[in-house]
Formats: sequence, structure tokens, C-alpha cells
Amino acid sequence: MKILLIGANGTVGSAIDRELSARHEVVRIGRNSGDLHVDISDSASIRSLFEQTGRFDALICAAGNVKFVPLNEMNESDFALGLQDKLMGQVNLLLIGREYANDGASFTFTSGIINREPIRTGSSAALVNAAIDGFVRAAAIELPRGLRVNSVSPTVLKEAMDKYAPYFRGFKPVAAADVALAFAKSVEGLQTGQTYQVG
Amino acid sequence: MKILLIGANGTVGSAIDRELSARHEVVRIGRNSGDLHVDISDSASIRSLFEQTGRFDALICAAGNVKFVPLNEMNESDFALGLQDKLMGQVNLLLIGREYANDGASFTFTSGIINREPIRTGSSAALVNAAIDGFVRAAAIELPRGLRVNSVSPTVLKEAMDKYAPYFRGFKPVAAADVALAFAKSVEGLQTGQTYQVG
Repeated sequence: MKILLIGANGTVGSAIDRELSARHEVVRIGRNSGDLHVDISDSASIRSLFEQTGRFDALICAAGNVKFVPLNEMNESDFALGLQDKLMGQVNLLLIGREYANDGASFTFTSGIINREPIRTGSSAALVNAAIDGFVRAAAIELPRGLRVNSVSPTVLKEAMDKYAPYFRGFKPVAAADVALAFAKSVEGLQTGQTYQVG
Repeated sequence: MKILLIGANGTVGSAIDRELSARHEVVRIGRNSGDLHVDISDSASIRSLFEQTGRFDALICAAGNVKFVPLNEMNESDFALGLQDKLMGQVNLLLIGREYANDGASFTFTSGIINREPIRTGSSAALVNAAIDGFVRAAAIELPRGLRVNSVSPTVLKEAMDKYAPYFRGFKPVAAADVALAFAKSVEGLQTGQTYQVG
């Protein structure tokens, strides 16, 4: 398979790359690193990406930004980044990318645990993660040509605990390599409309 | 209690009004009808509403618009209405309204079944409904002063089947009066961070 991997240089993206590149052709994509570049918050940048990649068999997004702010300091504008970047960025990867997707191709997006187990400062992340999982479930049933779409919803990463441990006390972290397995299950399996929870 | 009821003139709103007005002071609010007016997609209109209502004990939103379009015809712009109106409209009712909320006041928002049981043309609705439920779960744990927030997620209404039946074949519709009970449970109970599924 030809797999487009967005966020290839990140902790999860690198693990996905290690998991899949032995068996598949992985095109490594990042905002500033990798073979090709994309800013997923900008639909023109997404379209330009696909003009460079051409047709593909799987797209994985292991990227997406959202703001973490205490609720009592939040206003409308604090939600804009998550809506435009992690949420509509991934939605647009499907809306635009489907034109370039081979029959039976899959889209696998990243949500996260925070809507299931909320943490302080996580209101925007919870909103966005839930929205991604909801979109995936609904979009799956309308996709033509055997196209599939799933999301992976991991808990906090072992590799990120040095930075994020204070926000995730009591959470059992998972290794990025285990999160990568869920992406492989989505890409190399046949399910659609699923959210794979890891941790 | 002084209860602000947004969407008071709608099918669900009218049923909520009937359920709660015998026991409470209900302020009826609509886009163009009712005692007071608000356009929830406009945060300035929301702020103007609260300047007129003053302090309150419960806010219910039984309003919110979202676009229904076949996925294969959808592009980014089709998601904008749902994001700005039903989703951020309700988020902004909390972000702005909390300044006017008495200690222990509750916010009860409307999501819907479509993220749990998707239907054709429902990708934006699924995204928005899931986002509301995710936001409610996370915001609840950070609210101060005993403030609470829940959502009600109903299936299709009996009263709407003449219009919507073709989209909801096989769904068992519920009466608006039964949906109103879930709003009463949220307002008059003590739970927070919950999504009350009806149907």
C-alpha cells in the first residue's frame, strides 16, 4: 500500500512509521519536516499536498493542535485552534483527500482519551476528540467505493509523561508503539466507522 | 427557580415549558419569538440576552442549527453552520452565561442521537452532537460554585415524523414530553457532566 502519514516526525507518527514501513510504502508528511509538507488547518495547503502525493491507499493523520486552557480563563477564541486545526483539519483531509483515494482506501484520524476521561484544561480537547469520533462514525456509512474511515483514541503516551504527567495523574500511559498498532489495525484491517481506544 | 429556556417555541421547548412552568419561573427565549430574543450563533447577541435576563438558576438550550447534506456533496463550508450555531452557540451560552449564573445553577444543552446511530446526510450533525456531549463531560469537572452542565440527546421526535420519517426508518420516535423529562432531570436533579439519552 501507498500510505500517506501526516505527523510522521512526531512521537506517534514515528512509531507508526516503524510499524508500517517494513510492509508498505510510507510517504512521510509534516508541517515543516518529512518528504512533503502540509498545514492541515488550511484547506488550500491540504489540496496542494494531494496534488503532490497523487493517489493513495491509506491516509493516517497523527497530527492536530488544540489549546489547553483552564475553563475559567476560556472564551470563544480559545476553541478556534482546535476547531480549525485538529477537527476540521482532519475532516478536510477526508473531504478533499477522497478525490485522490484509491478504491478501498482508508482514512485514520487521531482523537484522544480526554472526552472519555476529562482532565483540567481539557474542555476544547474533549470537544474536538468527541467530534472526530462522531464524524468518523457517521461519515463511514456514506463513503462510496469501499472507502473507510476510523479514529484512534489513545491515552497519554509513556514518551510524553516527562511533560504531561501533572495533567494525567493516575492515568496508565501507553507506549507509542502500542498506539501505532491501532493505526495498523485500521489501515490493514477492514473495519470502518470505528474508534480504536488505546489505554 | 428562574429558568432561561432558549428555543421555547419549538416542539421540545414547548414541552419543556409545560413540564417546568408549573413549578418554576420560565423565561421564554427564541430567535424571533418569546419574551426575549437571541441568535446563539452570535456571541454579542448572547451577551445582550444575559444583560436583559439578569441572574438565573438554570439555562436550557433547546435550539441549534446544523446542515444536513449527503457526504458526497459536502465540503468544509457545510460544517460551518453546525460549528458556529448548535456547537459554539451552546458553548458560548456557558462561557458567557456563567457570569450571570447563580451558585449551583445548571446549563442543559441539546445534542442528539445521530452520533450514536448515524443516518445519511448526518455527518455534520454527528460531529456537532458528539462535540457537545464531549464538552459537557469535560467542562463539568472545572465549573466552580456548584455550577453544573449536562446534555440531552434525544432520538427523533414523534411530532417530527411527518417531516423526518424517511431519514429515520426503523427508529422508534419519542414524544417531546418524554424529552422534556430529561431536561427536568438535569435542571431539578444534581448530576453534572452527564448526557441523558432519550430513545
